Amino acid sequence: MTSDLQSRAINTLRFLSADMVQQANSGHPGLPMGAAAMAYTIWTRHLRHNPAHPRWPDRDRFILSGGHGSALLYSLLHLTGYDLPLDELKRFRQWDSRTPGHPEFGLTPGVETTTGPLGQGFANGVGFAIAEAHLAAEFNQPVGTQKNAEERGKENIRARPRSSASYNIVNHYVYAIVTDGDLMEGVASEAASLAGHLRLGKLIYLYDDNHISIDGSTDLAFTEDRMKRFDAYGWHTQTVPDGNDVDAIDAAIIAAKADPRPSIIACCTQIGYGLPTRQGTSKAHGEPPGVEELRGAKEKLGWPLEPNFYIPEVVLAHFRAVLDEGQKAEDAWKKRLESYRLEYPGLAAEFDRRMAGRLPEGWDADLPTFPPSIAGKGAGGIGPLATRAASGKTLNALAAKLPELLGGSADLAPSNNTWLEGLPEFQKDSPAGRNFHFGVREHGMGAIVNGMALHGGIIPYGATFLVFSDYMRGALRVAALSHIPSIWVFTHDSVGVGEDGPTHQPVEHLAALRAIPNLLVLRPCDANETVEAWKIAISRRDGPTVLALTRQPLPTLDRSLYTPASELARGAYVLADVGDIEPELILMASGSEVGLIMDAGMRLAAEGVNVRMISFPSWELFAAQDEAYRTAVLPPQVRARLAVEAGIAQGWERWTGDGGAVLSLDHFGASAPAKILFEKFGFTVENVIAKAKELLR
Amino acid sequence: MTSDLQSRAINTLRFLSADMVQQANSGHPGLPMGAAAMAYTIWTRHLRHNPAHPRWPDRDRFILSGGHGSALLYSLLHLTGYDLPLDELKRFRQWDSRTPGHPEFGLTPGVETTTGPLGQGFANGVGFAIAEAHLAAEFNQPVGTQKNAEERGKENIRARPRSSASYNIVNHYVYAIVTDGDLMEGVASEAASLAGHLRLGKLIYLYDDNHISIDGSTDLAFTEDRMKRFDAYGWHTQTVPDGNDVDAIDAAIIAAKADPRPSIIACCTQIGYGLPTRQGTSKAHGEPPGVEELRGAKEKLGWPLEPNFYIPEVVLAHFRAVLDEGQKAEDAWKKRLESYRLEYPGLAAEFDRRMAGRLPEGWDADLPTFPPSIAGKGAGGIGPLATRAASGKTLNALAAKLPELLGGSADLAPSNNTWLEGLPEFQKDSPAGRNFHFGVREHGMGAIVNGMALHGGIIPYGATFLVFSDYMRGALRVAALSHIPSIWVFTHDSVGVGEDGPTHQPVEHLAALRAIPNLLVLRPCDANETVEAWKIAISRRDGPTVLALTRQPLPTLDRSLYTPASELARGAYVLADVGDIEPELILMASGSEVGLIMDAGMRLAAEGVNVRMISFPSWELFAAQDEAYRTAVLPPQVRARLAVEAGIAQGWERWTGDGGAVLSLDHFGASAPAKILFEKFGFTVENVIAKAKELLR
Repeated sequence: MTSDLQSRAINTLRFLSADMVQQANSGHPGLPMGAAAMAYTIWTRHLRHNPAHPRWPDRDRFILSGGHGSALLYSLLHLTGYDLPLDELKRFRQWDSRTPGHPEFGLTPGVETTTGPLGQGFANGVGFAIAEAHLAAEFNQPVGTQKNAEERGKENIRARPRSSASYNIVNHYVYAIVTDGDLMEGVASEAASLAGHLRLGKLIYLYDDNHISIDGSTDLAFTEDRMKRFDAYGWHTQTVPDGNDVDAIDAAIIAAKADPRPSIIACCTQIGYGLPTRQGTSKAHGEPPGVEELRGAKEKLGWPLEPNFYIPEVVLAHFRAVLDEGQKAEDAWKKRLESYRLEYPGLAAEFDRRMAGRLPEGWDADLPTFPPSIAGKGAGGIGPLATRAASGKTLNALAAKLPELLGGSADLAPSNNTWLEGLPEFQKDSPAGRNFHFGVREHGMGAIVNGMALHGGIIPYGATFLVFSDYMRGALRVAALSHIPSIWVFTHDSVGVGEDGPTHQPVEHLAALRAIPNLLVLRPCDANETVEAWKIAISRRDGPTVLALTRQPLPTLDRSLYTPASELARGAYVLADVGDIEPELILMASGSEVGLIMDAGMRLAAEGVNVRMISFPSWELFAAQDEAYRTAVLPPQVRARLAVEAGIAQGWERWTGDGGAVLSLDHFGASAPAKILFEKFGFTVENVIAKAKELLR
Repeated sequence: MTSDLQSRAINTLRFLSADMVQQANSGHPGLPMGAAAMAYTIWTRHLRHNPAHPRWPDRDRFILSGGHGSALLYSLLHLTGYDLPLDELKRFRQWDSRTPGHPEFGLTPGVETTTGPLGQGFANGVGFAIAEAHLAAEFNQPVGTQKNAEERGKENIRARPRSSASYNIVNHYVYAIVTDGDLMEGVASEAASLAGHLRLGKLIYLYDDNHISIDGSTDLAFTEDRMKRFDAYGWHTQTVPDGNDVDAIDAAIIAAKADPRPSIIACCTQIGYGLPTRQGTSKAHGEPPGVEELRGAKEKLGWPLEPNFYIPEVVLAHFRAVLDEGQKAEDAWKKRLESYRLEYPGLAAEFDRRMAGRLPEGWDADLPTFPPSIAGKGAGGIGPLATRAASGKTLNALAAKLPELLGGSADLAPSNNTWLEGLPEFQKDSPAGRNFHFGVREHGMGAIVNGMALHGGIIPYGATFLVFSDYMRGALRVAALSHIPSIWVFTHDSVGVGEDGPTHQPVEHLAALRAIPNLLVLRPCDANETVEAWKIAISRRDGPTVLALTRQPLPTLDRSLYTPASELARGAYVLADVGDIEPELILMASGSEVGLIMDAGMRLAAEGVNVRMISFPSWELFAAQDEAYRTAVLPPQVRARLAVEAGIAQGWERWTGDGGAVLSLDHFGASAPAKILFEKFGFTVENVIAKAKELLR
């Protein structure tokens, strides 16, 4: 390949991208024009992928963490032969196109993750690399040993050297282009620290070091020694003084591959390279260059002024060579997989299942069923049980059936009850481990877990206190938006936290999480609903799920008397009608407050009130039921409805209606034993009864 | 002072704290016992404060960023003579005590900020140091020059060397004890990077380097080279190998003071120092030691077993010496201030005003009044105006009257319209500057702005896109909980963002922010409501305020026809009733959707419908009105109520009731021009009319 062809290929990326932005009259030309050579080097010299089959499991992953440079990614996808026609590039940022303003996972083939909110892509990549290391440790096997796969499966597998004498079924890199904005975001710092700790050598990040952010020069706010910082994290760092020097970038990537640490390569670039007046300035970042400026750039770089969206045939052929190479690479991998299948049929079948995202037969058999608690019994007997404790038992039962289930906590494992007993930790020397220590890094954990889920082959979960879901909300939103099936275990879900006080007591968090579209929030009321909640979370493969769980013990309802816990799947259900057929009062609650309405309801019934008691673990699931069901549960004529939840009222009005009321907690909590807080804040049987009677009057 | 006394003083801190935890049967003994010597060194050898007057403006600030170690802070406050009797220590973590589980600003004298959510205190301290540097640059003046203060006030003040020949009216340090958890959190990383960039030399942080977090050893997840990382940020770093060595810590603090950079001193400690079986283990971190273990610790360290809460008289006298020293220090400062007052009466009066938090006379005079827009006119004439643009003009008008008003954006200044024109930037060489570049660090900005507000003397604001309020939610919550008057400018407040697409389009954020207790959310509908919103934000000194502003231009309502914009202060108000006296339909909206309901309302009125149109900029303000007002605005008998907001419906049901409906956007947005998005998502006059007619049927 001639250096002329190379230079034309890079300019094709630049001007396709710039033409897209100019045509849309919206977008970011700066990154694509500045980082085109970096992208070119990765995509033509290193990235092993098959545009004809974007979901090939062992492909290298590429992440454009600075998602505002989306035009560059779309140009790459089109040129290398993904199913993204030139017409889509011409419809950049238009309604119903597959070329939205920022790359969206699921919408555009070849887009591995949704980026734009800065730092998320950076941290997703760490999740990809974790998944790769884990699956490699789990599935890669030596060639030519006849050892029974099932036996091997039972071993406590530790890291193996991945040599040519192994079936490298899982063996790919994670490349990213990361920006100043990514490096400034705390979520990326958190993920970088963990990546260094875990020595994720397959991570190769190219830093578009262009010295410019929206406000102007990075000298305004970002003068730290970035490479030294990454060095401190345990990364391999390099600097390429000329970010347009393909050979130098190439050499740096080769060196990165040879180093066992995660790598970051600072490539010194000029934002908006080629733009006559805007290159190297913040004006190049996020607005269309304008017809004149763009024409000037084309002239400057010797590019034909016409037509727009010009792709020299020879350049297209050059990029499309990837199609062949990619197919060959995938074919070679398939051949390898078939040999592996002969030697390790059990593991190969398991690999197929895992990568297809199919749950194994009987995965939900043998889950615990919790006997009803008897008032006054301690936790040792059949006393009340915290839903976090029930969750821990359920999670462990699931983990025994689901080798793909793994995860951990942001340094709260003993409190979140998320440890998989008897299973090893994931560490740099034990990548087959399934227990993760994310450190006190909630946001990093969120984005890493998203990356793990996006990779495929595993079902990851992350955990912290519900109150600290705030810290990771950026990642929660991307999961919801991108239909990523991450599972979040959020314990300590109310003022039931007790003495730790208002900094640690969620009151607005259930509402704030229910607010996120496509995020499923489940707040089970007892141990058996917790089992059902986990079943829903595992089954849900097109979006994230939150389990909101208590710190404090809750009574386990006697399901021989009440509706089965499996009705949790409907979001809300009648636990019991007490009294005559037609209820005159509805009490509804979620989680820890269900026990309260049951006690209050029974006392009201004893006084002759016809009362219906509803467990309401999920607004989203209930809203998704048909109207007949919803009306059957909440008959319009029963207007005396009291909702009870130890959190803010916001949104409950939808279910209580004008005739109803909400017993809620619309202010911050306090530091005191939980029992006292519930009393002081009115979450008592007496107060529920009093409020209910007010409604009946 | 004998080394025996010193050792007894440190043990007093340890065992007071441990006794508190044991008595509460809840809390964290590990940090207080491990870091007692660090705290002792700061509090007896360096911290310049006056326990008798905790709000002395020029006191040094101390932050216990690891707020879980609150028992240590309460012990220090009691021993040094703050108004926190021993009885309060005995009521640690109990209802209505002033010793809650984590330190809460405003509840306990001497607590400078609320900590517990990790990383917040670390970043608050950066805000304190910024405030100190700014106020020093603004108020400190040379001794003996007769230059007219008012003249000086007009200068573009740059940094001055603070020598003994200056009136150092503002000259204090910010000390903190920070923990592994703080250093792992991204919010602290962001703040540390900015602190290094700004060379905030008054920051002196002691890192309790105890190698333990909740999950176990920090080797599990946190093996980066922390001091090297801080070195990369531009900090001065030191390590004290023995965290119980008072003289070594003292020497390190002295060296830190001599260095112009922010300083961090890693002090190698043992968590739970003294506990016979738990010292140096995660068991020491967050649970009561138990009677036996605590007795063992007392025996080991030669402490009397009885009584609990034992304070040797000589130790109390030693700590209480601070009272005298503090009073002397404050008296000397007052004397200095009085000399300063003679020479710079104008500045001194201004200093008094600023530190008292009094707004100047006429601060809200001369704010812009925007003429009604005329349909079809461009932005240059009296056409429509984005509320972000109106906000920019208002902010600049306010800044001219309010020298205490300062702030900036997380690298979106041109988009957030938050630049103060003609005023300098705050940088290391220009600390008198009022424009801040926070970098792409939303969470760091949030906590830094909180620290600036807590310091006093300034009114800070921070800005980003509304969608990225998610990234800084941890800081927003602390502001609300702690009644911190931070102001947040969140622009691009709906799918009106347009082409940038769903990653950048808030839909759930208004609901999610309204969910936070004590956070005031204002979404003005036009330029003049934006002025009123700013007036509320500036006036509100007991909690944070969010301004949700549009990217896109909005019509400016003709207030000669409609109710004055000042009614925004009531949260919701009737813009107009059209038709007969009694309305049969209510249309209500906030922000950009108000123009829509006005157009729809007028067309419905033309068809003979009696329609009321309500601007609803703030749920919180409306909910705070008396019932008579609320009923007058929303008469119960008018059940046909349509709320229109380009965000999720959650919570609007409270105002629309059973007979009403919400025209909302309950899914993520899309990438396309804003106008098309509003059409596609049903935010059109036609659709509002259609929905309204459905209600009327």
